[in-house]
Amino acid sequence: MPSDVTAPTVAAFAGLGGQRVWSLMISLFGDLAQGKDDAIDGPVLSAIMALLGVRPEANRVALHRLRNDGWLQSHKVGRISQHSLTPQGRAESAAASPRIYAAPPDLSDDWQLVLTEANGAEDRLREAGFIAVMPRTFVGHGKAKAPEDCVALPGTTPPEWLRRAVEPTSLKEDYEALHRALLSIQTTLPKAEALSPLDIAVLRCLIVHNWRRLVLKHPALPGGLIRADWAGYRCHLLVDDLLAHYPRPTLSDVAKASAPS
Amino acid sequence: MPSDVTAPTVAAFAGLGGQRVWSLMISLFGDLAQGKDDAIDGPVLSAIMALLGVRPEANRVALHRLRNDGWLQSHKVGRISQHSLTPQGRAESAAASPRIYAAPPDLSDDWQLVLTEANGAEDRLREAGFIAVMPRTFVGHGKAKAPEDCVALPGTTPPEWLRRAVEPTSLKEDYEALHRALLSIQTTLPKAEALSPLDIAVLRCLIVHNWRRLVLKHPALPGGLIRADWAGYRCHLLVDDLLAHYPRPTLSDVAKASAPS
Repeated sequence: MPSDVTAPTVAAFAGLGGQRVWSLMISLFGDLAQGKDDAIDGPVLSAIMALLGVRPEANRVALHRLRNDGWLQSHKVGRISQHSLTPQGRAESAAASPRIYAAPPDLSDDWQLVLTEANGAEDRLREAGFIAVMPRTFVGHGKAKAPEDCVALPGTTPPEWLRRAVEPTSLKEDYEALHRALLSIQTTLPKAEALSPLDIAVLRCLIVHNWRRLVLKHPALPGGLIRADWAGYRCHLLVDDLLAHYPRPTLSDVAKASAPS
Repeated sequence: MPSDVTAPTVAAFAGLGGQRVWSLMISLFGDLAQGKDDAIDGPVLSAIMALLGVRPEANRVALHRLRNDGWLQSHKVGRISQHSLTPQGRAESAAASPRIYAAPPDLSDDWQLVLTEANGAEDRLREAGFIAVMPRTFVGHGKAKAPEDCVALPGTTPPEWLRRAVEPTSLKEDYEALHRALLSIQTTLPKAEALSPLDIAVLRCLIVHNWRRLVLKHPALPGGLIRADWAGYRCHLLVDDLLAHYPRPTLSDVAKASAPS
């Protein structure tokens, strides 16, 4: 039972892949119910998932799986279930949130170039968020701390080829497809005032979910090395803009909007 | 007929190799007679070469070769020949002199790191005096101009491994041997006042020659990347010190000193 508003948005994202129900549900709880005492009533969750185009059986399977994985917990309150993140699920959501909800980087941010000795600190550099652009040659944010005994030089205006060398090439088409989807919904969505809290919860879940599955696959690029035309950066600008224009509704407003009239 | 003074010096350098007579003669003319109107009389040249341990036949063969190569020219003046650099020989000597006679670099000099795109400007960087330390990664003096489209970053205090990566490894033993020879003559040579202009001409020829054949085989290292312990740098300090303490004699003083008494 997709609404007039959410149907085109669901359709815009449908072709992007990665829409597994349990993963969508992680995005939903992470965006809507990450607070310590937040819980989503069963009927509200069903209404959201239905708008996302998820059949009731698939919804139940995903809930079951996430409970087994220790991500979600469910409690009966009277005749209905309340679903919430476990402490572990909340911790993992909180760990990912800074990347997912980060403001778009400033393209004039400092960056640095780091060289390691042969058979040196490659793994430690990757773990610290540095990005390999050549063998033994990494880039990172200006303030990142390179392991001792590396050559760490503050960056200057980089040439185009270095900017491109930093981009995660395997995600090129995924980011371009996401950019097209985000652009299409941005130009066609009604203003937030014209949407119900339930519609906005669904919209935000789709945005966060599709952004999350790409942005968490690679380290954050230093702003000073980002091409203004890079699709990943264009996506970031649109995600930031959309989430700001469609602010997170309260759970009680979503519940009210999903109550049968 | 080596003198008491030059014999130990000739011996100190004898084991270093690279003492071909024509090459020694190039060093001699480059040091003693690079001026436009400078010429060395045949008997003076013979006296110097004899002190260098060169037999008269070898002296004649070298002169013949250098004339054929367009490096030297000889004119008869009365009964004696005068030998001088050709314009080409003078131009090549002048081109090499800045490297040979350069003051030792300041170890706090600026340096820069340069990255090129794949299949990029490697050859142009080498021609411009940059030194490859890794594939596509070069270092150079702070003021050197890297080709456009390279990443050129001002250097900071480098780790030991980068300093070592810049050193010409193939010359390691040659520089160490030269350092031992220079050190031994520095500690045993009489003061300049106790030497004849002829002895000093011979001494300077040996120093310049043995230094020249190593220093011209590699680009000048940026001061900021030089290990204070690198034998090439230790040689440079000694060469600079010795040439300053045994200043170039005039050709006429050398001629007077070589005249039979």
